[in-house]
Amino acid sequence: MPEFRQNRATKNWVIVATERAKRPHDFFVKEDVKQLPEFDPDCPFCPGNENMTPPSVLTVEGDGKWNIRVIPNKYPALVPDVELKRETKFQFLRKITGYGFHYVIIESPKHNLTIATMGIDDVCEVFKVYLKLYKDFMSYSGINTVIIFRNNGKRAGTSLEHPHSQLIASPIVPTHIRHLLEEATRYYDDHGSCVFCDMIRIEAYSGERVVYEDDDFIVIEPFASTSPFETWVMPKKHNACFANIDYEDACKTAKVVRLVLKQLYEKLNNPDYNYVIHSSPFKDANEEFYHWYIQILPRLTIPAGFELGSGIYITTALPEETAKFLKINEGKI
Amino acid sequence: MPEFRQNRATKNWVIVATERAKRPHDFFVKEDVKQLPEFDPDCPFCPGNENMTPPSVLTVEGDGKWNIRVIPNKYPALVPDVELKRETKFQFLRKITGYGFHYVIIESPKHNLTIATMGIDDVCEVFKVYLKLYKDFMSYSGINTVIIFRNNGKRAGTSLEHPHSQLIASPIVPTHIRHLLEEATRYYDDHGSCVFCDMIRIEAYSGERVVYEDDDFIVIEPFASTSPFETWVMPKKHNACFANIDYEDACKTAKVVRLVLKQLYEKLNNPDYNYVIHSSPFKDANEEFYHWYIQILPRLTIPAGFELGSGIYITTALPEETAKFLKINEGKI
Repeated sequence: MPEFRQNRATKNWVIVATERAKRPHDFFVKEDVKQLPEFDPDCPFCPGNENMTPPSVLTVEGDGKWNIRVIPNKYPALVPDVELKRETKFQFLRKITGYGFHYVIIESPKHNLTIATMGIDDVCEVFKVYLKLYKDFMSYSGINTVIIFRNNGKRAGTSLEHPHSQLIASPIVPTHIRHLLEEATRYYDDHGSCVFCDMIRIEAYSGERVVYEDDDFIVIEPFASTSPFETWVMPKKHNACFANIDYEDACKTAKVVRLVLKQLYEKLNNPDYNYVIHSSPFKDANEEFYHWYIQILPRLTIPAGFELGSGIYITTALPEETAKFLKINEGKI
Repeated sequence: MPEFRQNRATKNWVIVATERAKRPHDFFVKEDVKQLPEFDPDCPFCPGNENMTPPSVLTVEGDGKWNIRVIPNKYPALVPDVELKRETKFQFLRKITGYGFHYVIIESPKHNLTIATMGIDDVCEVFKVYLKLYKDFMSYSGINTVIIFRNNGKRAGTSLEHPHSQLIASPIVPTHIRHLLEEATRYYDDHGSCVFCDMIRIEAYSGERVVYEDDDFIVIEPFASTSPFETWVMPKKHNACFANIDYEDACKTAKVVRLVLKQLYEKLNNPDYNYVIHSSPFKDANEEFYHWYIQILPRLTIPAGFELGSGIYITTALPEETAKFLKINEGKI
C-alpha cells in the first residue's frame, strides 16, 4: 500500500509507492563500468593541460606535482568581477547582477579515479580543501551562502569524466534554504531541540534505515526519501555550519563519505549521483536549530510532471529495504 | 554577465548564466524524430489491448470506437480503496496512508500521435476530459488537490510512447503549493492584485518574452525561467482554479497548448517535455490571489547538485532569446 511520509525538517511530503516498488536490483543500473584511461590528452583537467583552464586559486602539491587544483569555472554561473547591483523594471521584474564565485575542485591528477576508488588519504585532502574554501568564504564580505556539490556521471548533469566537484559562493540566501531554516526554527520553538539531532537520535534507536554508524556519524536512508537510495551522511555533533568543523572532522567526514560511495559503487555498479553539502548560511552558523549534513542522491529515476507540479516526490523503493541492501558491516572503514 | 532573476510569484531566484549561454540550436536536440507505427501490438494502450489495463473509468467514443480512455494507473502512486489514516512513530516519523487517485488519460487510439501532431478537435476533447475530471473531483470529499501532467519522452520520465497524460488526486495540499499560495497572498496584501494578473499585464506590455498572444491567452518564456525554453500558457481572465472554467474555455486552452507544442516540436525536433496544469487547491478555488496556468518544461538540460542544494536553477539561455526563437506568427492558430 502506498503511503505519504513527511520530512520533518522541511515538512515536505513524499509518496512511497509500494505498489510500484521495484527490488533494489531492478533499478537503472549500468551494465558495465566504463573503463577510462589514467590520462586523457584531450581532458582539460588532466596534468599537462593546465593551460586549458583558468589559473588555479588553490593547489595541493606532493612530490613537486599537483594533487588537487581549485580553479574558477571556465563557464561560470556567477562571477567575482562585477558590482552587486539590484534592478527592478516595471516595479515587478527583479534582477541582481550575478556576483559570486564558481570554482571547480579537480580532485586528482588521475583521469580515471572517483571518490569511491581514491585512497582514503587523498579523499581526506579533498575534504580539507572543501573546508578551507568554506572557511575562507566565511570571512569574505558579501558572500552569504556557499554550496559544494559533486555531479558524477551524465545522468547527474556532468559531461566531464575527470574527478571533480564544484563550489558556488553566492550573496543570496536561496528561498529554498530560507524555507528550510524557517521550518527548523519552528521545530525548535515547539520542541526545544534541533530537528536533525532528533532525527539522528530516532534513526539510531530505530535502526531500520541505518546504513552505517560510528561514534561521529550516522548514515541513513531518510524516512521520507525523495528517490531510491537517497543517502544522508549526518554528523552526530550538533553544528549548523560546515565551516565550523576542524580539519580532523573534515577527514572523518571524508572517510565516511568515501565508504558510502564505495558501497554504492560496488552494489549499484558505479551509479550516476549528486552529492551536496547542506550547511547553514554564514549568518546562522551558530544557531541551535540547523545542522549540516551531506545528501547523496543516486540518479536512478527521473522526476517528472507530478514532482514538477506538486513538489511531492514519488519514490518506488522503501528506504528500509535500500538500507538493508546497502548496510555496511562494521570494521569495513 | 550572469544575473539572478526572481520569480515574483514564488520569490525563488534563478541564475541566468549568459557566460554559459548557448544558442538555441546548441541544446540537446534529437537528431531524428523516431518514426513510430500507428499500432503496436505490444502496447497496453493500443486498441485491442484493453484487457492489459484496468477497466476504464471514463471513455470518449466516436464511430463506435473509443477516442480517449481514462483508466486507473496499473502501478498507482495513490489508491482509492484505503482508509485515510495518520500514524506517528516515536512522536517524529509521520506517515499517512496513500489514499487518492492516479489515472492515465490515453489521449488517442493511435500509437504514433502526440498533442503536437493531433488534430485540434481531438486535443479539445482531451482538455474537456481534463476539465471533467477536475470538476468531478472538486465535489469529491477528501480530495483537496488535483494535478494533471504529461510526461513526453524518456528524458521527461516516461517509457510508454503511446500518447497519454496522467492525473493524481490527493487528500494533501503539498507544502510546495502552500508556499506558492503564501507568497501569492503576501503579494496580494502588498499590492491589492493577483501576482499572475500583474505578470500577464507586464509581459504583454513589455513584449520581450511573449511567444504568442490572443484575446484570451498569453504565452511567455518566464522572466525567471528555470531552464531553457520553459514556457507558460496563461489565461488572461483571473481564475484560481482550472475546475472553474467552462468547456469552451477548455477548448480554447487546448488550441493554444497544441499550437505551442507544435512550435516546440518543429523548432526543437520533438523535444522531451513535461507539462503540468498549475491550479489552486479546491478550497482556494475562488481566491483573488492565485491564478491557474500551464507550465511546459522541455527537458533539454539536467538539474544537478547546485539545484539540489540551493533550489536555485541555473539556466543557460535568455528567455528573451528563446521567446524570439519560438515566436508564433499571428494567424497561425
